[in-house]
Amino acid sequence: MYDSGGLEILSDEECRRLITAVPLGRIVFTDRALPAIQPVNFLMSNGEVIIRTSSGSKLAAAARNAVVAFEVDEFDPAIQAGWSVVIVGHARIVSENGELSELRGLPLRTWAPSAQDHFIAITPELISGRRLPKAA
Amino acid sequence: MYDSGGLEILSDEECRRLITAVPLGRIVFTDRALPAIQPVNFLMSNGEVIIRTSSGSKLAAAARNAVVAFEVDEFDPAIQAGWSVVIVGHARIVSENGELSELRGLPLRTWAPSAQDHFIAITPELISGRRLPKAA
Repeated sequence: MYDSGGLEILSDEECRRLITAVPLGRIVFTDRALPAIQPVNFLMSNGEVIIRTSSGSKLAAAARNAVVAFEVDEFDPAIQAGWSVVIVGHARIVSENGELSELRGLPLRTWAPSAQDHFIAITPELISGRRLPKAA
Repeated sequence: MYDSGGLEILSDEECRRLITAVPLGRIVFTDRALPAIQPVNFLMSNGEVIIRTSSGSKLAAAARNAVVAFEVDEFDPAIQAGWSVVIVGHARIVSENGELSELRGLPLRTWAPSAQDHFIAITPELISGRRLPKAA
């Protein structure tokens, strides 16, 4: 199946598989009424996107029960081909002790040198993906 | 200079230089009141981000005088280092004949197989960039 732009529409299953193929994504949120985007490394756990950050970060402030988008992609400029997957869903700061303890056990350390005391979880409510095949 | 997350703050000049180093960025907009993001190839021209798209695309509809974000980045997962630059500004559909004629002369063809009859220009109003140095 192709969309109106000629891109292949990826199945939900394929989107969920591709998300786990890359360590870095981009979270899209609103910061003082302006669109904001920040690259973050992440892991999938129990079907949710898990991000670590510090308590004082913009991201932590913005992620309090907000609807956010989370994007991962992989493109090869040499052949002008690749794919992207976008998740839209509610983000929440994880605060329950049992869940925090579980998340601290994940092999997830932020690449940034900041503190890592907060976990943000995004529950996917919409998942969409597109593949741009190599040009003929 | 470093931000509270320990990332190096890039100068305006360095941000503008880095933007021209990669052919692919991501435009962040609002689609039916939800955060949306789409990878696009682009060029810088006269200090503006130039994107081609088709007239019927979500992007063309969303970009009509909206404030959007545009992000480019380059990270190497092997060393967990890289940089990102984010532009925030008004997007507009280019409609003036002289400008259209100039933009059609740019070496810019969308990677997607869709029609390319519309040009979107984003005028940077805010530019910010961060570098994540290789961990010691």
